[in-house]
Formats: sequence, structure tokens, C-alpha cells
Amino acid sequence: MTAFVGVRNMVRWVHRTGVEHILAGMVEALGEDFRRWSDFDKSPRVASHTPFGVIELMPTSDLDTYSFKYVNGHPSNPARGFQTVTAFGVLADVHNGYPRFVAEMTLLTALRTAATSALVARELAPKGATTMALIGAGSQSEFQALGIRTILGIEDLRVFDTEPAAVAKLRRNLEPFGFRITEAESVQEAVAGSDVITTCIADKAHVVALPDESIDRGVHINAVGGDCPGKTELDPELVRRSTVFVEYPEQTRIEGEIQLQSADSPVTEIWEVLAGAAPGRTSDDEITLFDSVGFAIADFSALRYVEAVTRGSDYCEEIDLIAEPEDPKDLFGLIGAGVPV
Amino acid sequence: MTAFVGVRNMVRWVHRTGVEHILAGMVEALGEDFRRWSDFDKSPRVASHTPFGVIELMPTSDLDTYSFKYVNGHPSNPARGFQTVTAFGVLADVHNGYPRFVAEMTLLTALRTAATSALVARELAPKGATTMALIGAGSQSEFQALGIRTILGIEDLRVFDTEPAAVAKLRRNLEPFGFRITEAESVQEAVAGSDVITTCIADKAHVVALPDESIDRGVHINAVGGDCPGKTELDPELVRRSTVFVEYPEQTRIEGEIQLQSADSPVTEIWEVLAGAAPGRTSDDEITLFDSVGFAIADFSALRYVEAVTRGSDYCEEIDLIAEPEDPKDLFGLIGAGVPV
Repeated sequence: MTAFVGVRNMVRWVHRTGVEHILAGMVEALGEDFRRWSDFDKSPRVASHTPFGVIELMPTSDLDTYSFKYVNGHPSNPARGFQTVTAFGVLADVHNGYPRFVAEMTLLTALRTAATSALVARELAPKGATTMALIGAGSQSEFQALGIRTILGIEDLRVFDTEPAAVAKLRRNLEPFGFRITEAESVQEAVAGSDVITTCIADKAHVVALPDESIDRGVHINAVGGDCPGKTELDPELVRRSTVFVEYPEQTRIEGEIQLQSADSPVTEIWEVLAGAAPGRTSDDEITLFDSVGFAIADFSALRYVEAVTRGSDYCEEIDLIAEPEDPKDLFGLIGAGVPV
Repeated sequence: MTAFVGVRNMVRWVHRTGVEHILAGMVEALGEDFRRWSDFDKSPRVASHTPFGVIELMPTSDLDTYSFKYVNGHPSNPARGFQTVTAFGVLADVHNGYPRFVAEMTLLTALRTAATSALVARELAPKGATTMALIGAGSQSEFQALGIRTILGIEDLRVFDTEPAAVAKLRRNLEPFGFRITEAESVQEAVAGSDVITTCIADKAHVVALPDESIDRGVHINAVGGDCPGKTELDPELVRRSTVFVEYPEQTRIEGEIQLQSADSPVTEIWEVLAGAAPGRTSDDEITLFDSVGFAIADFSALRYVEAVTRGSDYCEEIDLIAEPEDPKDLFGLIGAGVPV
């Protein structure tokens, strides 16, 4: 039998354990895996594009465990009552190739994206950061706010979104967690005086959510929204005057903010910073930019963390995904004439 | 909720419906999809190789439905009590990207492989065929025998395997279905006078299960076993004097018998024969060879067939694989402070 954490159990687990407790644990799991970056087989994701959207498979593997995530991206979904992004993931045993763990990953992807941002912000944010601007109050925004607070303790949020309903939703979701939330009238008002700036815009276009002239020196920019070809959210000039940190350059040059930069624009890989092989922030004046696109190794970490914490608990069900004939050489015996069913 | 046909229900369905009835239906579903070959996005499979084996994802899509199969291949598994190959598959709606159907595919892959062989044999086997040689009595052998009988009515089997236990297993599984089974002492004895020759050898090596000099003119060879780099089972000279039919040349040149032929060796695509765009067998003397490797479109067909037949029945369960928040823009609301769990 294959272990399975479905939506209902993922929700129960997060709710009972506490989202911040989980984000903290996930940050450590991500850090462990990012520090051993060279252990992983880093295949490119496989995308199937149609006029409606994209469906992707994102595999990776170390010498013990293989993982992949199924994820879609359909920008016109919300107008039809569906989510833009849904996902699920699988862990398999590399030694025998059997899938051993299946989980919903719509929620889990939001958690791992926020945990990755938090892990990176711990390395790059200015010391003593107290305020975060949040540009975009969509599906990912609350997760980002909690991830950053879990690691940096930031409780002051300045939120801007072009849709008042999105901001109202964010307020409704985050006020019970004790955040102090200021609704900004403009991006400029949101970012003025903020130490960390998180952008998470849903539009699939080259927007300039963050104009260059609005950004002070010394901030850390956590750019979450720009994550596929044709989708960016920063002023290219701002990217040029920032120190850019990425998950995996081969992928980020296609999908991230740096898709609008030259192919040899300087970047630092996050795993190198975490492993002590490259510097993070080097001065108080520097603008650090995490050009986040989401990489398969982060999904691997999130899945193995959930697997480790939920296995054997009642959050974990079993599904009969893989046939297990008594004699492994006699598959037909499973459906043969004498089988009682 | 996502529909799910697990192992227990797949076994129940096959057993109660009858494996031959299912094979016949699957042959028609495969034929429909092969005839509309150009409708499909044909991505290459994505393989993760390790010293232990390989794990592959096989995606394909038309403009309505996306499918992928997870499948492993671990040659040393049976010695450790595991199957060499296990699999599961998913269908998703291209319009919104949501997965809608998940199924075990260890059994289903065996059924679709046999149904594909049967579909092709219907086009290529010599008229009035009454006898099939079966070289290799492993996991796939019984499915092949039933697939070919379903379509061609062949009840006389001449079986050769180097392992007597495998032949005993095949006899135990197939005699209740009314086959007349002759155990051959050698490949030569098995193939002499046979109209159709099916080879399905498990060894991952360039073996010569079928020597050139043993093969009479006029037969149809259904070569199932050679399906990955380094794994073939026919004499290259025999391949040269056969008319070779393949699923998808780009893949077969890497994985099939023709991996040992020159890169421009002549092949005919099966879909062209089925669509009437290329001839099949053109003379009674011709040796036709189906160099089967297994392609993603066959998995697509098998999955959509099972989905269509089982949806709404008690063979189909539901699993909560995909989060469905009431407001598609409020994912966090699923785990927010006020959620009762």
C-alpha cells in the first residue's frame, strides 16, 4: 500500500499543528536539502502547453528518494471558479522504484514557497527588519507573511493590491494571527520604509509592480510572482542594481525576473550561500533580490518533511496504487481464473 | 474529488468483466487514438536513471485530456521479492488543469501492451493464422496470449522459456482459458510452423532470443521485450529482412530492436497503417515485425477507456487529491484560524 495525505488530512494536520510550526520545520528541511545540492539529479521540468494553460511534471531525485510534482497553471481559472494552480506530489524509493507516498500539494506548494522565501530571507534580509511590504494579496500572500514572520519576527505588513476584495481577504485571514496590517494606497506607500518587500502578483505579463525609483537601498526583495516565461513583476533596472539570488540558474533564466536580463547577468545560487560557499548580503546598502521561481528540490523537501511527520499518524491514509502480486513474476495471477474477488 | 481505480478495484473489474472482453474494448480505444495520431502532443518520456534502475514519467495530451504514466524498471527487483515494473497513471482536464482520474497501471500497462500487440497483429498477421510461438513466459506472456486470441482467435501456443517454473506458471494461468499449450524444447521448435511469434524476454541485454535462420518467411513477429537502450531480443539480420513497424520512430530508434540498425533504417508508423496512409502486410512471403516499445498514447487510450467504463460504478473510488477552496482565490481560507476541523 502507498501512504496518502489528501486535502482533508493536510488541512487537519496544518490546523492542529499550527501553520507557523510547520513553516519553521519546513525551513529546516529545505535548508538541509539545499545545502546538499549536488546530491540531486536536477532534471528540467516537463511542460505541456495548450491555449488554456500549462501542465508540468517536476521530477528530482537523490540516491535514495525520487520525487515529482504534478502542477498546472491556468490564469483564466479563477473567473470560472477554479484555482489557477493545483498540485499533487509523489515520493518513490529509488532502490526498487515503488511509489511510497502521495500527497496533495496545492496547499503544500504554498507552504514550501513561503518556507523557501523565509529560508532565503534569513540569509539576506537587513538586520533588525521590522516591516514587510506585500505587493499582491492573492493566494500566496498570507503564506508569505507567516513564513517571513516565523523566521524574522516581522509583524508589520503594508499591503497593496489593485483589488480591494483581495486585501479584505488577506486582512480577514491574517488578523487572527496578530499581524498589524496597513492598507497602502499605492506601491510607493507600501514600500516606503519597509525592510523586506515581497511581490506576488498573479498577472501573466511583464508588469512593473515594483518601479525602480521607489526602492531604497538596503532592502531585501522577495520576488515570488514572476515564475514563468512572459511573467515578471519588477523593473528590469531594479534587477540590475540588485544582487540577484536564484534557486537554479538554468531554470531561473527562463522563468524568473532575469528572463529580461542578458544570459550572463550575474547571479548567486542560494544553495551556495547556505553551504557557506558564496556570500549573502555583504553591506547594509545592498539591495538583495531573491528571484524565486520554485524548484523541484523544494517540493522534494516539502514532501519528505510531511512524510516524516505524518507517517504512522491518522493524517496518513493508505491507497492501493501499486499491485503487489504474491509472486512478483506472476502478475497475471492477480486476475487469473481462480482468483476470489 | 478525483476518481480513483486502485489495484483491488482494477482486479475486480477485470475479473468480473472478463479479461478478453476488456482487451477487445481496449483494442478499439487504441485504434481510435492511433488513427488520430496528429491530435497528440508527443513529448519524450523523462527518465531518472540510477544504479538500481530507472523511473520514468510518460506524458501526452490532446486538446481535451492530458495523461501521464509513472513507471519504474528495476531488473534486480524480482530477486528481492518486488516486481520489475510497477506503474500508475493520471488523466487531467486540459481546460482547467485539474487531475480528474488516477489509476493503478501495473495491471493496466500489461493489458494495454497486449491490446497494442493485438491491434497491430490484426493488420499484419498472415491470413488464417492458427498458431503462436511465445518466447518468454514472464509477466507479460499471458496477457499477450489472450490479446492475440481475442483478435485473431489463435488457441495453439508453443511456449519456450529457459526457466521451467515460468512455463509452469503460464500453463497454470492459461489452461483455464482453454488454450492448447505445447512446451517447446528450444526456440527453433517453438517457432517452426508458427504463424505469429511473440518475443517477451525480461533480460536487460542484447540477447538473440530469435536467431535469423530459424524464421520462415510469411510470419508476423510481435517483439515486445526489447524496449530500452541495451535491451534487444532479435538477431539484427532478422530485423533487416523484416518490414519493421513502430509506434513512434524517435523513441523506437533509442529503445527498440532498431537501436541496433542504422539511424535511417526503413520503418512504417503503425498509426499510418491504421489510418490507411501506409500499407501493412503486402505479400504472403513478407516477414512483418512490430518493434513494440510502449508509447504514452497507448497509456492515454488505456486510461480513458478504464475511466469511461468505470466512472460512476463501484469500481471507482474518490480521493481528495486536489484542494477545492470555496473561493478559488482564497487558498489560505482552507487552513485559516476559523476553520472547523
